[in-house]
Amino acid sequence: MYYPEPIAKLIDAFSRLPGIGPKTAARLAFHVLRMKEDDVIDFAKALVSVKRNLHYCSVCCNITDIDPCRVCQDRTRDASVICVVQESRDLVAMERTKEFQGQYHVLQGAISPMEGIGPDDIRIAELLKRLGDETVQEMILATNPNIEGEATAMYLSRLVKPFGIKVTRIAHGLPVGGDLEYADEVTLSRALEGRRELS
Amino acid sequence: MYYPEPIAKLIDAFSRLPGIGPKTAARLAFHVLRMKEDDVIDFAKALVSVKRNLHYCSVCCNITDIDPCRVCQDRTRDASVICVVQESRDLVAMERTKEFQGQYHVLQGAISPMEGIGPDDIRIAELLKRLGDETVQEMILATNPNIEGEATAMYLSRLVKPFGIKVTRIAHGLPVGGDLEYADEVTLSRALEGRRELS
Repeated sequence: MYYPEPIAKLIDAFSRLPGIGPKTAARLAFHVLRMKEDDVIDFAKALVSVKRNLHYCSVCCNITDIDPCRVCQDRTRDASVICVVQESRDLVAMERTKEFQGQYHVLQGAISPMEGIGPDDIRIAELLKRLGDETVQEMILATNPNIEGEATAMYLSRLVKPFGIKVTRIAHGLPVGGDLEYADEVTLSRALEGRRELS
Repeated sequence: MYYPEPIAKLIDAFSRLPGIGPKTAARLAFHVLRMKEDDVIDFAKALVSVKRNLHYCSVCCNITDIDPCRVCQDRTRDASVICVVQESRDLVAMERTKEFQGQYHVLQGAISPMEGIGPDDIRIAELLKRLGDETVQEMILATNPNIEGEATAMYLSRLVKPFGIKVTRIAHGLPVGGDLEYADEVTLSRALEGRRELS
């Protein structure tokens, strides 16, 4: 026994979180010890509330506290375009651009044979159900530009072709503000490939 | 509104912790969403329990769930030597060396004029009270080897001199500017071994 049991338990709980090692966990636990009791109780409530009050939207599979979620309920958005993303956080990243006015579909993951995640483990069935409805005219694949994301995009693209829906993939290229010098070969090849004529 | 309220609240709670920015906070919050409900409830309970079931030991000012704490209650330990550390985590680091068999005193901070922390803001009064008792023959100053720790050691050394107690400082085997908490056991053992009397 080095730590009293209550703090040892909290250190253990923190160290189960991704990217938090035992030393950081101890630092966080001791920080909690110095927080105001009300703040700690709010933190504890927020933890439980996330688990109890959130579920997946029955339409787009995004996490939400109301069903359908706010985006799906929003009649001002264009229902003819669906942007497919892997995670709820990706949806938030897209929303921040304020450029996209269509609907979303959140796969809650990507196909990854390495991790044993197949098409049935992510929300593809729900997506197909939505595409059966004739309002959807375009599906934008905005999965991550890595192996799993590309595999998922490829899979979805082939699957959705028979529906006669336009399938697009977000562009690969250099990040704005980046340096050509530091770009990897694959990104640079893609950027070259996807070049557009300037008017 | 980007995130549903429950998750936004949890992201906010995580991002108040030290060293956790908004992106990490979001990652952690979404991880919680995927944890088992029981584990989340245990986490929440651990948070509140740390606040409710821990307090400072009435003898050494370490955090503890029983009073006096286990170290102070341990009759096999040498009550004639008191090792003064800044934080409870430092006590744990000292205990890991398995070299020290005396008692501790945890200051719960260090003198830091920059942060407005003076001698009255840390547990010095409690320490003096213990030294009044004639059993204590040596005080080992094991505050951090940085500006605040050195200042605190110097201050305590001068304050305790009139008591006729031997005052020692752990050796600077520790890298200057570092944190006691992160020192490896061997370095810390050497530092303890090479302590010298302050003139």
